[in-house]
Amino acid sequence: MSDNVLTPEELEAALRAIGAERYHNLHPFHRLLHGGKLERGQIQAWALNRYYYQRQIPIKDASLIARLPTAELRRAWRSRLIDHDGDGALPGGIERWLKLAEGVGLDRAYVESTEGILPTTRFAVDAYVNFVRERSVLEAIASSLTEMFSPTIIAERVEGMLRGYPFITFDTLAYFKPRLSQAPRDADFALAYVKAEARTEAEQQAVLNALRFKCGVLWAQLDGLYLAYVEPRLIPPGAFAPGPDGANR
Amino acid sequence: MSDNVLTPEELEAALRAIGAERYHNLHPFHRLLHGGKLERGQIQAWALNRYYYQRQIPIKDASLIARLPTAELRRAWRSRLIDHDGDGALPGGIERWLKLAEGVGLDRAYVESTEGILPTTRFAVDAYVNFVRERSVLEAIASSLTEMFSPTIIAERVEGMLRGYPFITFDTLAYFKPRLSQAPRDADFALAYVKAEARTEAEQQAVLNALRFKCGVLWAQLDGLYLAYVEPRLIPPGAFAPGPDGANR
Repeated sequence: MSDNVLTPEELEAALRAIGAERYHNLHPFHRLLHGGKLERGQIQAWALNRYYYQRQIPIKDASLIARLPTAELRRAWRSRLIDHDGDGALPGGIERWLKLAEGVGLDRAYVESTEGILPTTRFAVDAYVNFVRERSVLEAIASSLTEMFSPTIIAERVEGMLRGYPFITFDTLAYFKPRLSQAPRDADFALAYVKAEARTEAEQQAVLNALRFKCGVLWAQLDGLYLAYVEPRLIPPGAFAPGPDGANR
Repeated sequence: MSDNVLTPEELEAALRAIGAERYHNLHPFHRLLHGGKLERGQIQAWALNRYYYQRQIPIKDASLIARLPTAELRRAWRSRLIDHDGDGALPGGIERWLKLAEGVGLDRAYVESTEGILPTTRFAVDAYVNFVRERSVLEAIASSLTEMFSPTIIAERVEGMLRGYPFITFDTLAYFKPRLSQAPRDADFALAYVKAEARTEAEQQAVLNALRFKCGVLWAQLDGLYLAYVEPRLIPPGAFAPGPDGANR
């Protein structure tokens, strides 16, 4: 083993260090969202844009499943499809996100059309889908590892939003509840995979870069929201504009 | 012909209307840049990020040439490759952009590495390359039509930057001079193509949407710069940070 190859534990520590520096819980938009500091229209903009991310996640996962070599791996990853698309009886993540969007006052058909989302959102999310489609399976799996950090942010978010916004109910936030168990299960699987499979220095660097890339995907989405809806409120032509009272446009 | 089909002249007018509403000359970042209002570090950030766009343009053009069906069309589009990559004697657009970046104080190798660019820049530019790769030839050609609007912005830019910034010379801005003749030549060709080939309502709407998409690609790049380097100066982790005196980091 070369001196530059990390042990699995060192690799995990390096991944966690990336999260500590780059995960989007550190972004000012999330601090405002969780701190009860946003107007209803700003929360609508967040819900509207984030819907596009939710909607593309199963596309991303299916393109990865299509490239996984064994039934065991495909089966493990398939649970993500079920989580997001539902099983026909229990609503999946996409449906639950639509409920959240309706709960903050958006029109369901408008959300589903994605016509009001920021170009920045579309480009960032599409970059993620393309990354998973085009890079190695190892990098594609590593790019999912932001889920290592998501339980913390979800707990902060649900608590902060319930406390901060009278118009948000526990029911509106039902999206997040299953994620508290799904995300750690998925993250554990992906982390074990990259710790076992990233053996060379080049593979380990690719894994670390994949996580940095994904942190950028999440961060850029909040950058877009911050610029358009917080400061300096520079809404790009054609994007969602909150009503004067924060009502749906 | 259905009532909803535009004449070629109406289609051109509709394209120009999109430019009048969405072209990035309207973005506050460009107003600051051309008005002499930016610090050197902010101009460096612009030059650094825009380099990634310049660098990917011939990739985009080559992927389109690969899909054009006739020697005549491929030959016409090939001039763009020569413009950007050079002919081995005269420097192409990429090389001239590197000169511009060096002229505003950036290190050439740092610029070429693209490691300091904003994720937003990378996602927007990659979205453009992928659009041209994946959509119909008609949409791919239509997405180039922002060049209809570029001579105006270039004239404003060169004049404004020479007047506004003592450290910028005519030589530094040599990138733009050939563009004043190249862009109209290219835009005329692409405009004639879409006016001739977009005959159905669906084709015409696809053409208009392709131009809207491309305006979003350009606009989003300035959104990223504005947020990170103008207001509220929220530089994403890992991105270029201007030195205190605007010198290269």
